[in-house]
Amino acid sequence: MATRGPRIQAPWHLPWLFFLCSVTCVLCVSPSKVPRLGVREITMEKLKLQSLASSHQKFRTFYYNQTLDHFNYRPESYKTFQHRYVLSFKHWRGPNTMAPIFVYLGEESSLNDDLGYIGILSDNAARFGALQVYIEHRFYGESIPFVSREEALKDANLRGYFSSAQTLADYAEVILHIKRKYSADSSPVIVFGGSYGGMLAAWFRLKYPHVALGALASSAPVLYFDNITPSNGYYTVVTKDFKESNGLSILQKKFNTCKPLEAAAELKNFLDSLFSVAAQYDRPPRYPVDLVCKGIDSAPEGSDVLDRIFSGVAAYFGKKPCYNLDAFFSAETLDGWSWQTCSELVIPIGRGSNDTMFPADPFDLKEYIEECKRTFGVPPRPHWITTYYGGHHFKEVLRRFGSNIIFSNGLRDPYSSGGVLENISDSILAVYTTKGAHCMDLLPATIGDPEWVVLQRNIEIEIINGWILKYYQDLLENSI
Amino acid sequence: MATRGPRIQAPWHLPWLFFLCSVTCVLCVSPSKVPRLGVREITMEKLKLQSLASSHQKFRTFYYNQTLDHFNYRPESYKTFQHRYVLSFKHWRGPNTMAPIFVYLGEESSLNDDLGYIGILSDNAARFGALQVYIEHRFYGESIPFVSREEALKDANLRGYFSSAQTLADYAEVILHIKRKYSADSSPVIVFGGSYGGMLAAWFRLKYPHVALGALASSAPVLYFDNITPSNGYYTVVTKDFKESNGLSILQKKFNTCKPLEAAAELKNFLDSLFSVAAQYDRPPRYPVDLVCKGIDSAPEGSDVLDRIFSGVAAYFGKKPCYNLDAFFSAETLDGWSWQTCSELVIPIGRGSNDTMFPADPFDLKEYIEECKRTFGVPPRPHWITTYYGGHHFKEVLRRFGSNIIFSNGLRDPYSSGGVLENISDSILAVYTTKGAHCMDLLPATIGDPEWVVLQRNIEIEIINGWILKYYQDLLENSI
Repeated sequence: MATRGPRIQAPWHLPWLFFLCSVTCVLCVSPSKVPRLGVREITMEKLKLQSLASSHQKFRTFYYNQTLDHFNYRPESYKTFQHRYVLSFKHWRGPNTMAPIFVYLGEESSLNDDLGYIGILSDNAARFGALQVYIEHRFYGESIPFVSREEALKDANLRGYFSSAQTLADYAEVILHIKRKYSADSSPVIVFGGSYGGMLAAWFRLKYPHVALGALASSAPVLYFDNITPSNGYYTVVTKDFKESNGLSILQKKFNTCKPLEAAAELKNFLDSLFSVAAQYDRPPRYPVDLVCKGIDSAPEGSDVLDRIFSGVAAYFGKKPCYNLDAFFSAETLDGWSWQTCSELVIPIGRGSNDTMFPADPFDLKEYIEECKRTFGVPPRPHWITTYYGGHHFKEVLRRFGSNIIFSNGLRDPYSSGGVLENISDSILAVYTTKGAHCMDLLPATIGDPEWVVLQRNIEIEIINGWILKYYQDLLENSI
Repeated sequence: MATRGPRIQAPWHLPWLFFLCSVTCVLCVSPSKVPRLGVREITMEKLKLQSLASSHQKFRTFYYNQTLDHFNYRPESYKTFQHRYVLSFKHWRGPNTMAPIFVYLGEESSLNDDLGYIGILSDNAARFGALQVYIEHRFYGESIPFVSREEALKDANLRGYFSSAQTLADYAEVILHIKRKYSADSSPVIVFGGSYGGMLAAWFRLKYPHVALGALASSAPVLYFDNITPSNGYYTVVTKDFKESNGLSILQKKFNTCKPLEAAAELKNFLDSLFSVAAQYDRPPRYPVDLVCKGIDSAPEGSDVLDRIFSGVAAYFGKKPCYNLDAFFSAETLDGWSWQTCSELVIPIGRGSNDTMFPADPFDLKEYIEECKRTFGVPPRPHWITTYYGGHHFKEVLRRFGSNIIFSNGLRDPYSSGGVLENISDSILAVYTTKGAHCMDLLPATIGDPEWVVLQRNIEIEIINGWILKYYQDLLENSI
């Protein structure tokens, strides 16, 4: 049970790799939260990123007057808040050219965490002459209605507007606004997203096919709701991964913990907290983010991800005889995600007694609901996601409905257990790698990338290219 | 401008034929609002209805604890209200048989107005062994949250929950509830709807393809939003219809008006009000509904629709030297529709100076918005329908997305100007008749039906049969 204090009490099994995916970028590429600029470039350079398209382009920030509630007509619903989106015109072919628009759909973190860190848009914009758009998720980053993030999440009424359906409607409004503003009405739109943002991308194509021509949904566990995926799917993959890398004993040694690790969750919670704190309190004179990033970067040549992370931990705390795993704090993502999983995103992760390397901890919906009620005063709606977005009989439904969605996964990612791993139709496709991790295809291409991720990205882009060509062909046919 | 007093001030061009379609049934087949039973049978018999399946079956009424707001997690949103739905098991093949479920999606009136009046479900249930479901639209009939209809519509907060997106989510919840309750998880669901209800049916298939396998959207002007259809489309068809039947002079003569008619709108408003009042105040000792129905029925053999309507008018007022068109009152549909068109359903109907038989009255969005603000205190959201449901580039979008929707129309219906009249893909199809009127295919089959409407209905049912067969085939293939 991941319990991180009364407010952010994240329900049970806070998705570790979700977290790693976004925290890594919180750590290293978050320009606005880091008063000193340049952290991103230094870090990336040291990580030997070759394609620095993203860091060399100018991002321009805009704010849209976003409607508070799209589905409700109470007078309060008409209020608007400042909704942040960011554009890069660097490779754009310009208005009235029908050049595509690539849109990154923000997930459970500040948009600062994505800019530069998400490479797939910038790496491919030149080839397509595409306009790049990055849209922040409401209630994260600078897109928080009216008050501070803390106040917004404390306010039971205000946080009621924090939901995926409202977020998708936000995205539709911003995209249509941009198309009007830049005379790009006929431009095909492709949406991209990873993890929870990948679910949003897939759902956006399903709910707003008139706004987005296609979606790349990276590591999106769209089937991890209700009873579609066995609840131990997540930890079964974790166990498999650790088996392959010699499991807990390695972790224990690597992190030089004061007490023997009883479960990977302890370390997980510890890393959760450490990275969050480093990001949230990244201020003079210590600049902990910089500190951890430098630690990560200074790991010896040939270090693997865990070595690097520990090297970051050691840099943060300084050299110690051993490391204490009790410093728990909150962070933007943890807070927001805690509410989201207690309102609608009920992902039933659990594990039986002998099916993983962890102690038994079956998913208990009743307990989950009670905990959410204690924390937020309202119960979650555990069946709403499948009611609104579907999930049951996914293949049968989408076989004759919908098109142009890529579900990409890496099978070492525990969330791949709830992902779509089978082609559904000619254009709803599964592209996965056996070695890949969470959201890997979205990162900027680098020299050191293994061949299989290069291949995966190429396949994805060729599929997208096919959608765009077909779109142009249709336009041509209709105009003749 | 149809102005019917301060509360029901229906915005501008209240859809006459929408109104006729639903008022006809309010008049003649509304069992619960008519304290004396039997009106329906008498009327139908006299109208020589042959297929009386609908009146001979037992409808069973149920109430579902419906969530007030599906897209919002404010504490108030969790409240539930009693949502009415009605089942007929008469032809149902039973649980675990995969027999289809036919669902009628209620429109802007009480469900009482639909039961018995909508024939296409009952006329075809036997062939398919189908369960029949009729679901009421929130804020109509008995499905009004917490208070009386009048109070609900006066309450600016409460009426905020009165929207099409909430309604579609209601329908999804009720259908999934019924499938669980009656062990019909694998039953294919076909949704039916007419006019606004037809829009709901089409949109339901697009937004909830995992809940409904297909939709019959009868007379659904899904393209009458934003600037997709020219605003004079509606009145151009009205003009064409009246030209063919010799126009205003005939109306004037038929209705024996005290003053010459200056526009059809006067008569339209008059009929609006007369029928509404008759339905709303249908009580002893006069039973005005019965009175009007008897008037309609007693029109001489061979009377056309207008003759019959006038005959009803004359019966209501008694024989008079001439008829005064000033008695304006409210009715459930008018009230509800007034709010719906002032919040989201902005259908821009207008007419230029020389394009119809009516005086010029161009659609003026600014004026429309101001009027809505005066009436309800909030402006409409005129672009929301196309943002959420689409509409622009309809054909291009649905050509490669979505499936299993029939758009049926009759070209004499003014709303067909905003309908889909072209096949879009192999399974998104337009089935129209040149002579047909609004929602005609949904009515119970009768001996006197013209051949072309019989043909239209047969085509529709065969298409639906094809969807269902394919669905079974898929299940079979997957189970092998």
